[in-house]
Amino acid sequence: MPRIRVRALLLALVVGGLSGALSTSALAQATAPARATAAKAIPPATYVPEFGTMWTFDAPPLDYWKTRYNFAPDQAWLDHVRMASVRLPGCSSSFVSANGLVMTNHHCARSCISAVSTPETDYQQLGFTAAAAADERKCPGTYVDQLQSIEDVTARVQAKSTGATAAAQVAARDAEISAIQAECSKTSGLNCQVVPFYQGGKYSLYKYRRFNDVRLVMAPEEAISFFGGDPDNFTYPRFDLDLTLFRVYENDKPFQPKDYLKWSAAGANEGDLVFVVGNPGSTGRLLTMAQMEYLRDVQYPATLANYKRQISMLKTLSSQSEANRRQYENAIFGLENSQKAVIGYWAGLKDSTIMARKRSFERDFRARIAADPKLSTNYGGAFNAIALAEKELTTIAARQRYYGLGGGTLLQLAGAIVLMPGQTALPEAQRLPQFQGRAANQVRSQLAGAQVDPEVERMQLTAWLTAAKQELDPKDPVLVALLEGRTPEQAAADWVTKTRLADPAVRTALLEGGAPAIKASTDPLIVAVRTLEPTALLPLLERAARLNATISANAEKIGRAIFAAYGTALPPDATFTLRISDGVVKGYPYNGTLAPYKTSFYGLFARSAEFDGKPPFVLPKRWLDHRSALDMGTPLDFVSTNDIIGGNSGSPVVNRAGEVVGLIFDGNIEQLPNRFIFTDEVARSVAVHSRAIPEALRKVFEVPRIADELEGRTPTP
Amino acid sequence: MPRIRVRALLLALVVGGLSGALSTSALAQATAPARATAAKAIPPATYVPEFGTMWTFDAPPLDYWKTRYNFAPDQAWLDHVRMASVRLPGCSSSFVSANGLVMTNHHCARSCISAVSTPETDYQQLGFTAAAAADERKCPGTYVDQLQSIEDVTARVQAKSTGATAAAQVAARDAEISAIQAECSKTSGLNCQVVPFYQGGKYSLYKYRRFNDVRLVMAPEEAISFFGGDPDNFTYPRFDLDLTLFRVYENDKPFQPKDYLKWSAAGANEGDLVFVVGNPGSTGRLLTMAQMEYLRDVQYPATLANYKRQISMLKTLSSQSEANRRQYENAIFGLENSQKAVIGYWAGLKDSTIMARKRSFERDFRARIAADPKLSTNYGGAFNAIALAEKELTTIAARQRYYGLGGGTLLQLAGAIVLMPGQTALPEAQRLPQFQGRAANQVRSQLAGAQVDPEVERMQLTAWLTAAKQELDPKDPVLVALLEGRTPEQAAADWVTKTRLADPAVRTALLEGGAPAIKASTDPLIVAVRTLEPTALLPLLERAARLNATISANAEKIGRAIFAAYGTALPPDATFTLRISDGVVKGYPYNGTLAPYKTSFYGLFARSAEFDGKPPFVLPKRWLDHRSALDMGTPLDFVSTNDIIGGNSGSPVVNRAGEVVGLIFDGNIEQLPNRFIFTDEVARSVAVHSRAIPEALRKVFEVPRIADELEGRTPTP
Repeated sequence: MPRIRVRALLLALVVGGLSGALSTSALAQATAPARATAAKAIPPATYVPEFGTMWTFDAPPLDYWKTRYNFAPDQAWLDHVRMASVRLPGCSSSFVSANGLVMTNHHCARSCISAVSTPETDYQQLGFTAAAAADERKCPGTYVDQLQSIEDVTARVQAKSTGATAAAQVAARDAEISAIQAECSKTSGLNCQVVPFYQGGKYSLYKYRRFNDVRLVMAPEEAISFFGGDPDNFTYPRFDLDLTLFRVYENDKPFQPKDYLKWSAAGANEGDLVFVVGNPGSTGRLLTMAQMEYLRDVQYPATLANYKRQISMLKTLSSQSEANRRQYENAIFGLENSQKAVIGYWAGLKDSTIMARKRSFERDFRARIAADPKLSTNYGGAFNAIALAEKELTTIAARQRYYGLGGGTLLQLAGAIVLMPGQTALPEAQRLPQFQGRAANQVRSQLAGAQVDPEVERMQLTAWLTAAKQELDPKDPVLVALLEGRTPEQAAADWVTKTRLADPAVRTALLEGGAPAIKASTDPLIVAVRTLEPTALLPLLERAARLNATISANAEKIGRAIFAAYGTALPPDATFTLRISDGVVKGYPYNGTLAPYKTSFYGLFARSAEFDGKPPFVLPKRWLDHRSALDMGTPLDFVSTNDIIGGNSGSPVVNRAGEVVGLIFDGNIEQLPNRFIFTDEVARSVAVHSRAIPEALRKVFEVPRIADELEGRTPTP
Repeated sequence: MPRIRVRALLLALVVGGLSGALSTSALAQATAPARATAAKAIPPATYVPEFGTMWTFDAPPLDYWKTRYNFAPDQAWLDHVRMASVRLPGCSSSFVSANGLVMTNHHCARSCISAVSTPETDYQQLGFTAAAAADERKCPGTYVDQLQSIEDVTARVQAKSTGATAAAQVAARDAEISAIQAECSKTSGLNCQVVPFYQGGKYSLYKYRRFNDVRLVMAPEEAISFFGGDPDNFTYPRFDLDLTLFRVYENDKPFQPKDYLKWSAAGANEGDLVFVVGNPGSTGRLLTMAQMEYLRDVQYPATLANYKRQISMLKTLSSQSEANRRQYENAIFGLENSQKAVIGYWAGLKDSTIMARKRSFERDFRARIAADPKLSTNYGGAFNAIALAEKELTTIAARQRYYGLGGGTLLQLAGAIVLMPGQTALPEAQRLPQFQGRAANQVRSQLAGAQVDPEVERMQLTAWLTAAKQELDPKDPVLVALLEGRTPEQAAADWVTKTRLADPAVRTALLEGGAPAIKASTDPLIVAVRTLEPTALLPLLERAARLNATISANAEKIGRAIFAAYGTALPPDATFTLRISDGVVKGYPYNGTLAPYKTSFYGLFARSAEFDGKPPFVLPKRWLDHRSALDMGTPLDFVSTNDIIGGNSGSPVVNRAGEVVGLIFDGNIEQLPNRFIFTDEVARSVAVHSRAIPEALRKVFEVPRIADELEGRTPTP
């Protein structure tokens, strides 16, 4: 099920390009810490609340913590929580026992839980507990990464970012990053990544130790871990035990980490200072006003219209049979969830108070740039360049939406087949983004493997043509060519009946035959797209790509300018790398009253009873049977003002002593606009409370061995 | 504690004049039912959703119920629920046993519960249960009124509403109403009231049988009946057992009503059709756009600014000592509650969707008037007359706010003393509203009895002068005279030190001495106000009164026009008379997720635990001790789409069979804007669930005799 992890994925979809080059790799020379070198020319900036608290471990805001909380951790404290906090693919987690137990969210462990399930025994539904060590099950493909060190490689990367053109500069920079990563891996044997911060204002080399033997120890039932389902997702008060426990093995023995987080007996209490240590995926806090306005006025409305169309179509299909209902249930939930998230982000962009803060920051920032001749020369034009590009993008936005040929699988396949030969003939950097690097591989695998349901195709194409007809000029060549004077319904039915692209063999032949095969094809859909490609599709898509490249290049300038002007007083946008965020356990005003800082097992049973136990508010039998054993007042979930986003799922929440007091699994709905501007009046992170976990392990799941291990009651090996 | 009852009071304060002549009385000739005679000239209107469902018992919307719910009650059903539903001062209630048990809200029974308490035993805090009939305690001053019949007296009242001037017409009408009431009381021995509906479009004679011997049978602890206190007030999900049971006695024996509501075994379930039968106090659904815009742009912002000022002042006082904290705690809660309500009303007026519906209705309505020559002649000018008057009121609004001299008790007293002789010399109808009828008596009693705390006076006057200085012209004569060049702080301190009006003897002497004594007074505050009265205060106050009279007279025309155009298809505004409202038991979207249609005892214990049992989320010891006896999944409260407002507190909720399924005690925060336009997307009425009551009586309060009586398990006498 979605939840905050999906938000990171989602952002890639709707915003794109914020998280930088996460997948490149190489080795680098260490440089002085960034903190010491930044922002020399301008008086140092202090903490800027709207940029939040996703601090990197090489620039912890020690003065700010000291002033605000009277908290002054030493380097050992910071190293300890860093080493105990490990990364999973797409999620966060932490070592929580001397014997290598790793705590994360249930929704971060779905692939493992499914993999160890059998047709007879669905652990997703039933939950899983390993009664003894021997029962712990290997998770195929799951690994955890432990961050060993961070080195500033900015000087080295930027020194090589030279060249006559922007493209040449980018190529040179990327080559240097690759070289750094390769050197690092070779020398250290570690997994090395150069991470751009501040949109390229700073580059750091992150070295990870990877653990590949990860085994499933305990997972509750899906109904409890995702209690409240899609309706409660992104909200609070909440009643989820969104937990999975893994164990890391080394040489077939439990790994014994030097650094693991001890369990807090008291857990999170109101007013406590707490830290979230995890890997937020992607934020857009450095976006300019022009970029945010584009999202608000162009991108998000279109994204939401698209979700609406898809949901409506799937609901129609679902209503046709029980088999369809089961088939599309998850897809509908996923879409509704994405819709809820985008509505939340959009709400932030439409909030005049939030936008006024952003405007005020931008004014201050531009004044700082203008006041410094060097900054002004280097970065002064970036804001206007972005604004002009966004303006031009707006004028072509409707065509851009449809010239990508997103109206169902068959149309997408036709587009990919026709464009492929021309695109692959170009140097990588000159191709359209969807034909570069990994994206091109995805296109190829879709061409080979895509399955097509004619009825679904017909509906998708009908909906897409209907929308295109509303939004495009009636004389638009793509619209004219695809409708050929028919209604959207007729045209869609005709295309789906007449094209042979549903057959993978036909597609493979076209792909392998390249340009000549496409030229010779008589498949009507190929013929139509082939005709449109040189005159309509390609010029428009290339124009959009150019504009986006301009925005990207100038955004990088702005990132450098921000770093130059503010330094690490302003934490960088999220990059799915380890951060430590400070916050306070705290309720908030909601619904005309107060949301409590925590919920309880009472609340779980209440919400189930209050919906008459109907899905998604069902309590599994085990919970009903063990109700009287539970201490019902035990805290279940809680909220705090920490700064998180998708990717933080599974992050530990620790107290001043570095002990576990909670496990992040979501944010409330008021937190969604934090993607662009951090606020903590009502935005909250939602975590499982540490006290709920041993209580459930002992009283409901009856695995005291695991509860004892978490609470440190078993002898340390 | 406040809750929906307070809203009726509040409305009188902030809107005023909507509920008509409730206190006049007499006897009348019966006329044909209004339904048959209304709206002849114009095609009959159908149900208009935004006017809600507060139906009178003489015009039940049988066709609408039949079409919408396939529900067709006979006259016996209607008579039965009408006779079983009785009115309390300011609240609603119902007979719920053959032995005269009456069910209402705890917050409607506070005066009785306090009256039977002793210094040693505070039943407000402890709750009260009469173990046997002999323990039931007489409530001094409490009575219930049972509506016997309704007669249309429109023709008789309107026939007499003649005269050369508007004032003469009003006087003639009021005299006729008094005559009708007097005749009725004399003939029937009943309590008779002529009630104006549709702002005078229709007049009905309501005859009540009054029961004066009302005894307290059972009341829970305040902590349970008002669980969640001020924060949860006006909200849902909710966990209150807001219940009191009285018994009506006649000749020292339990009264045995022919009509009482039987207890439903199943209670309210999702999707059920349910009816609320009670006495909504006052709504403003016939207000014109101009009136609503005045409230939105002028009145409510000023009201809220005033609340804010008062709350801030009381919080300052509270912070000065524990004694002050206790003294002002309730006042602060009350103000915050009023503030919450007004913010809710205001939100409705600022909601563009709601205002668009209103605008659309008004357009339709004015078109109907314009299409009918007779309506057009009689009522065509009313909208513009109101709009003009509101516009002029807006121009004098700032002065109107301060020329009433509301800056603390001393200034108010000075104003009343100086104005009194001139006002009382005038005929009643020519006086300022605050010197007419009962209002004049209130002024007199305040003059005689008011207690003054110099420190509070100083703070109030300072705050008021500060606000006046911000809002009035610097040369404003009242401002100049009261400041005399000093700062607000200095001026306030001086006035409070120098005036002798804190002494009741001084005030009485001035009051009794009349104009000569006032003229001779050397009290500086009297001197200042005396100088301002003829030149500044009186002209402005008289001008405002004239404008309000114009609005009132034209509002009455609009009421008549509405009734002429729509008839009883459109229920009249609330008048604190018996109504029956249809609705459905139904959850709603809130907080990004769903609010369940009901809550449970689990939820009560959850909310208490989640706030660590702190006030106002304390559970009384009796509840903690009896927790394990309770069936925790029992429904506690529920919501439905019925149309209620202040005055409906204590109304029974009945099912198709006329059985009790609930007890209304509040609305959710989304319902507040329903004051002006009814909506049921998210607006909900909140009721105690019928199943919670016997469960609590048996398991917590251990009074099975009362539970048995409610459930009809005791033999009918």
